[in-house]
Amino acid sequence: MTVVPEEIIRIIQGSDSFVLMTHLHPDGDALGSLLGLADMLESLGKKVFRYLEEPVSHLYDFLPGCTLADTDLGALQDFVAAANGKVAAISLDCGDCDRLGREKEDLLNLSPLLVIDHHRGHREFGDFRWIDSARSSTGEMIYELAMELGVELSISAAFNIYVAISTDTGSFRYENTSPRTLCIAADLVACGVRPEEVAGHIYDNFTLQRLRLMEQVLATLELFESEQLAFITVTNKMLEECGADAGDVEGFINYPRALRSVKVAVFIKETQNGGISVSLRAKGECDVADVAATFGGGGHRSAAGFRVTGKTVKQVQLQVLDALTKALSEN
Amino acid sequence: MTVVPEEIIRIIQGSDSFVLMTHLHPDGDALGSLLGLADMLESLGKKVFRYLEEPVSHLYDFLPGCTLADTDLGALQDFVAAANGKVAAISLDCGDCDRLGREKEDLLNLSPLLVIDHHRGHREFGDFRWIDSARSSTGEMIYELAMELGVELSISAAFNIYVAISTDTGSFRYENTSPRTLCIAADLVACGVRPEEVAGHIYDNFTLQRLRLMEQVLATLELFESEQLAFITVTNKMLEECGADAGDVEGFINYPRALRSVKVAVFIKETQNGGISVSLRAKGECDVADVAATFGGGGHRSAAGFRVTGKTVKQVQLQVLDALTKALSEN
Repeated sequence: MTVVPEEIIRIIQGSDSFVLMTHLHPDGDALGSLLGLADMLESLGKKVFRYLEEPVSHLYDFLPGCTLADTDLGALQDFVAAANGKVAAISLDCGDCDRLGREKEDLLNLSPLLVIDHHRGHREFGDFRWIDSARSSTGEMIYELAMELGVELSISAAFNIYVAISTDTGSFRYENTSPRTLCIAADLVACGVRPEEVAGHIYDNFTLQRLRLMEQVLATLELFESEQLAFITVTNKMLEECGADAGDVEGFINYPRALRSVKVAVFIKETQNGGISVSLRAKGECDVADVAATFGGGGHRSAAGFRVTGKTVKQVQLQVLDALTKALSEN
Repeated sequence: MTVVPEEIIRIIQGSDSFVLMTHLHPDGDALGSLLGLADMLESLGKKVFRYLEEPVSHLYDFLPGCTLADTDLGALQDFVAAANGKVAAISLDCGDCDRLGREKEDLLNLSPLLVIDHHRGHREFGDFRWIDSARSSTGEMIYELAMELGVELSISAAFNIYVAISTDTGSFRYENTSPRTLCIAADLVACGVRPEEVAGHIYDNFTLQRLRLMEQVLATLELFESEQLAFITVTNKMLEECGADAGDVEGFINYPRALRSVKVAVFIKETQNGGISVSLRAKGECDVADVAATFGGGGHRSAAGFRVTGKTVKQVQLQVLDALTKALSEN
């Protein structure tokens, strides 16, 4: 595992104003890292703009400081102008600048742009990078950064970082959970984070819409290759019928993944813009980052994904099934 | 948190033969602690009898060394005789000697009997005790004992102890997860335990029947009293249609319980003998043990249940709804 590159420390120490950004549809690691780092920087007396393209999903509205996130590009421009353009931008947990969203051109124009990410297959962008795919989560890297900066973590920073680590490791169940991950978690609990409070928010936080959607999504389950490959699907129609939103599907892929026989679980999701996003989760030998890469995507060995346009759910399913069947036979 | 009492260390160091025992229907902490400690003692050149009243359940048949457990009281007596009666017995994770099972008289006659347990409300028995309810699990205590004894943990001892800790903390989600718990987990992972392998055995163990049943049971969800009360139902017909058995519904009540608005979740289950069993789970103020008591049942404040015969699911649902509505209005 790498340590924080010196120039990242130097730029952060030398800057007064920061714009933080992350990937579209941010998950717990993206939001926890962004809000945790924002808190840390503010505790050092710095000014921070927490930029998000969309308001924080109701799934994460318990995160301390989430109401401080701002979706207004005009406000961001005012913030930059007020700093006479002297801002450092930091992209967090984003493996590909295309995932910065519709305003990516404006965001990529900010300079210097620091990039902190743990995705395998990260596509380089920005001016200074700290990329470490051996890390469980970007949250883990933010903790290391705090230690390097000598920040005493506030309870809200510790809480955000704990949520980041906990969500990206599936509550310390995935293979990305290293001794260092658990040591950091221990320190965050010593800072006052209560694991049962975090778990209550993340896991006992279902809406009725989400539960109805889960029922519909589970009904789409299909198994192939002696039940080694499991597919589930969510369509825009299902979201509409259940009154649910795209964020409500978070974690559903764990159900087919939990099937004893399953080696790879696939979740095919229609997106609002008419495209399709595909998540892959592997147990054991199969490397789904490789499979995702053949579709122009990326991720980790056991968790990867990609997006396509101009295809139907059925077409995508057949192509992914074909690719995974080949991948399985090569193992 | 306490440290290992000196006399426990002294007796273990001074003894050559050990009988290990735990509570009836042993869970992950009971079995992991027993098998982990057995491995540790053997690595010190000592002889160990792993006594269990029943063979290890299929849920835990992945634990290293589980086939070495012995359910034969005669073999135990031979073991003691071969040691000329000089054995130290150790009871693990057992809060009450009544839970040692049908052979408890014979087991309690072994001397000296050391007792290592973390249950709150532990009822004292045995000759030398180390009881610490601030510990997440007995597994955590076995780890501390290993450190005191200077044992270098084998991978199988580390694996067993990790399973013990992980199951009793709900994968580090419950409030018993302390910084020390997480530090120990970190060290066990450093010893070579793979968290995803443990989680795979414990959590990714769904059958397709169970997933299909889950979908059907979720479809029965009904909410009452401004979505504070949630009911789900499983019928014998559903079990039959899904090819599932009664054990497959384990944990399903957590889904309605996880709804943000829900204060009490109710799971109504038809039983094979034509009766109905009802499980109640509360979050917050409502005391469901009181409600269960009015139906002749019992349990704890937040988890209780009862059984009825001669009634339909609908009748039971209406009666429980009535009782819970009253209970809610009294809070």
